[in-house]
Amino acid sequence: MAANQNIEEGLEFTPKFDDNGLITAIAQDAKTGQVLMVAYMNREALDTTIQTGCATYFSRSRKKLWKKGEESGHVQKVEQILVDCDQDCIILKVTVDAGQCHVGYQSCFYRALKPGSDKNLENIAEKIFDPKKIYKI
Amino acid sequence: MAANQNIEEGLEFTPKFDDNGLITAIAQDAKTGQVLMVAYMNREALDTTIQTGCATYFSRSRKKLWKKGEESGHVQKVEQILVDCDQDCIILKVTVDAGQCHVGYQSCFYRALKPGSDKNLENIAEKIFDPKKIYKI
Repeated sequence: MAANQNIEEGLEFTPKFDDNGLITAIAQDAKTGQVLMVAYMNREALDTTIQTGCATYFSRSRKKLWKKGEESGHVQKVEQILVDCDQDCIILKVTVDAGQCHVGYQSCFYRALKPGSDKNLENIAEKIFDPKKIYKI
Repeated sequence: MAANQNIEEGLEFTPKFDDNGLITAIAQDAKTGQVLMVAYMNREALDTTIQTGCATYFSRSRKKLWKKGEESGHVQKVEQILVDCDQDCIILKVTVDAGQCHVGYQSCFYRALKPGSDKNLENIAEKIFDPKKIYKI
């Protein structure tokens, strides 16, 4: 198979990291299908995730590995890892408890564009925990 | 509110484009919750998507706007646009017909890591169309 075809049709996992050494990772609730968050992994974060079964990302702001839930306790147990056609994005199917977003919601996607507007959002979820009680920043 | 808090808690849509002028966009089936694909938008692609109601991305390889389905006919009708806490990623909840991935599957995520392996994939879906009959490349 040609290289490109091998990436798309083959069964070898060859994740493609970008110029910063990162790959986009989507955490999706394995049970409900809700997209919980989007973050990034370097090779080490991906390897750690595969080895431990707990989602571990690379924090672009803190420039270090970040085990999801290390501070909040809201870890993500990885049930399955999916990869897309060109292998530059992965989905983690995860089992979680309550409150995956640091703002206090179950998902980071708690707002939607109001119908007919291009700049006004509306809340589509309720907070389920108080971040001030969880994070000590 | 402080700037950061406004981005996270406010109801003004202020999408954050990266150094290349792009924002990550996830297309998710509005009915089933299946993640179909991940692509990128520049400001113009996002505006076009909002205005037309049809998902339009920016092709990083072809360096131009790309209305999903312009060649294959498999357009994405946008039902809702969600944004995450730091507004650097959006989800398009879309209604689609069959076959969203150019390889022939309903979703680009048609492979998963085999349990216990860090390099072997397994197919988790069946092709639903023949790309050769759709694309004339």
